[in-house]
Amino acid sequence: MKKLFFFLFTLITLNVCAQEIVIGKKHQIESKVLNENREYWVSLPSSYRKNGYKKYPVLYFTDANLNSFFHAFSGITKQMSSDASPQIPEMIVVGIVSQNRVRDSAPTNSLVQWGGTATKALETTGGADNFLKFLQTELVPHIEQNYHTADYRILAGYSFTGLTVIHSLYQTPEFFNAYMAIDPSLWWDNQIMLKRFREFSKKELSKRQLFVSTSERVPSLYPKENYVIEFIQKLEASPVKGLNVHAKVFGTDQNHHTMQIMSFYLGLKNIFSGYMIDDAIRFRPATELKAHFENISDKLGVNLKPREGLVNFFGYNRLYDNQFPTNSAAAIEFFKLNAEYYPESYNAWDSLGEAYWHEKEYKLALDAYKKSTQLNPGNSNAKEKIKEINTQLN
Amino acid sequence: MKKLFFFLFTLITLNVCAQEIVIGKKHQIESKVLNENREYWVSLPSSYRKNGYKKYPVLYFTDANLNSFFHAFSGITKQMSSDASPQIPEMIVVGIVSQNRVRDSAPTNSLVQWGGTATKALETTGGADNFLKFLQTELVPHIEQNYHTADYRILAGYSFTGLTVIHSLYQTPEFFNAYMAIDPSLWWDNQIMLKRFREFSKKELSKRQLFVSTSERVPSLYPKENYVIEFIQKLEASPVKGLNVHAKVFGTDQNHHTMQIMSFYLGLKNIFSGYMIDDAIRFRPATELKAHFENISDKLGVNLKPREGLVNFFGYNRLYDNQFPTNSAAAIEFFKLNAEYYPESYNAWDSLGEAYWHEKEYKLALDAYKKSTQLNPGNSNAKEKIKEINTQLN
Repeated sequence: MKKLFFFLFTLITLNVCAQEIVIGKKHQIESKVLNENREYWVSLPSSYRKNGYKKYPVLYFTDANLNSFFHAFSGITKQMSSDASPQIPEMIVVGIVSQNRVRDSAPTNSLVQWGGTATKALETTGGADNFLKFLQTELVPHIEQNYHTADYRILAGYSFTGLTVIHSLYQTPEFFNAYMAIDPSLWWDNQIMLKRFREFSKKELSKRQLFVSTSERVPSLYPKENYVIEFIQKLEASPVKGLNVHAKVFGTDQNHHTMQIMSFYLGLKNIFSGYMIDDAIRFRPATELKAHFENISDKLGVNLKPREGLVNFFGYNRLYDNQFPTNSAAAIEFFKLNAEYYPESYNAWDSLGEAYWHEKEYKLALDAYKKSTQLNPGNSNAKEKIKEINTQLN
Repeated sequence: MKKLFFFLFTLITLNVCAQEIVIGKKHQIESKVLNENREYWVSLPSSYRKNGYKKYPVLYFTDANLNSFFHAFSGITKQMSSDASPQIPEMIVVGIVSQNRVRDSAPTNSLVQWGGTATKALETTGGADNFLKFLQTELVPHIEQNYHTADYRILAGYSFTGLTVIHSLYQTPEFFNAYMAIDPSLWWDNQIMLKRFREFSKKELSKRQLFVSTSERVPSLYPKENYVIEFIQKLEASPVKGLNVHAKVFGTDQNHHTMQIMSFYLGLKNIFSGYMIDDAIRFRPATELKAHFENISDKLGVNLKPREGLVNFFGYNRLYDNQFPTNSAAAIEFFKLNAEYYPESYNAWDSLGEAYWHEKEYKLALDAYKKSTQLNPGNSNAKEKIKEINTQLN
């Protein structure tokens, strides 16, 4: 069925006046570990259905309530996973609201702030272990119980909460699959995380990824040393087994307060390096698409598939295209692959039925349409086709 | 008053369960020009108030309903204008829903699609003039009547709607101040827009900007010629007076369907080149901040000011900072500048009053607090301070 087909040329959608544009919901969880209520914000993929059959990797990030991060990051994630040439899979985005940022982010207790002076505002620091315990034993299990999650988790953080990301990588590297630290505050506590690197570097990980970014420091009153660059150098000098490192050092056209968008984009692009497909792949056999996703799944250690709607589009494009010669056999292979990827999708079977029907393969069409109506008894299109085919066959 | 101060360290915000995250509203306008209802989506800056005194540039873009563009683009715009080192001003973002994309985007009528074959789906093409008339005589005036708009308009479009952007630049270059065309479909109608370039290049514009992006083409069934690169070469060979051109050609790690996020980010970054301030500017005299914004205002031909909350933060930072030596005189200069920028802001005057009070300049503090209560009779903080000062002075 063409319902998931791309309407590239004509789009007619008229909605009621002044309807709100909603991108997600705010939730709360009672944390026993932290002894407080914690707020988190969730943005779901466009194809997400409450009773759906698809599973999605989850991107967790901190500071959801700062600097329009949730709005921007969830939007970028959606955009990058959309369209005819997705760069990343669709993901569930969970933004954790910073409620006690320094307490939760700092792995050690210290009163020394950036610049070298002491402040009472840092008295509560040293709670990162507790915060990670909250993440790992409360929030993540809660998300995985309540949403359709794939077995792939990303943790992202910026600046002070980037410390949490590095701490999480050091302490329990297998819990998250990928880590994104945007200009993390590695100056913290006399560069404690640099000192702990040696111990961490002895670990043996499996298919883990780290993206870390920073910028060349411009002259200011703050210390000129850039400990993130030192961290990157350490990672290069002593590669950690099973950890794929992607580092980006911006020039002076960016600084600590401007690099977030680019870092987030490049972070996702790098973590999912090898995922991107060109839409011209539809002119080649479906087996190539399948092999492509087997490769990236193997590389990342999680079962990834192209979007159902995209494969459906490829099939219809090869079946009915008016730009290039069509190829029904190639189309059928795309539809078969989609039904293999998403056997619970009535639409995948319906499309396959249509392609077989188009090729006058009535028996195969009948089987596909029957599967579609089993999955969705309300699929009147398939029911009609079944009647027609039965007439043809009898 | 510190209410606009940055809470970098502790943020306690608990909201009710499952509250929706709203980023904008969908609206409709009855277009007489197009003889149809048109839908557009609006995202307002964080500091926007219905009865507020601030004015904002407006970014118009097409395809609001495609590929999560509205979600991503409005989020990126907000993020880039936030934080301590904004790269662009806060803006009103207006996304125009594509309802008849080919009709509205194509400046001429042609049945030839990308790839060279003809299709009936293009029968309605050639309506770009009409669409621009709708924009210029209906939508933009409507937005400017109903929102607090500054005299600065940007038009952005992608792919086929990028044609509209170039057509708009050619036909009425002074209507929008800046143009962003992301991989525009310059193959259209035997490269009609390239052929029309010569005529356009004779125009004399004033402080107009164009950002255009594309990528090196990878081998595919489509024509290999990249007419956007040819367009960029023409712009370089025959610079148009008063048109500042920013071009970005991505490598093969990007393609037509992946370059949107990076293009949009770089487009804004380039259009507002010279806008960005480093937060370390607060350690230098307020006159430097003022001069910086006078320069960028002059360059772009519109009165731009730093965010009120940011200048307020600079002032408080210099007044009470615990990291670096404070400087009350410098703080007062920031607060004075803010009251000059935003004379209708009761908070700007309140902050200035506080700084004078802190410096025991009671008469000046009294004047500032009085202005604050005139603007907001409900400012109980200022009222109390006025009482205290009167006691001091008597």
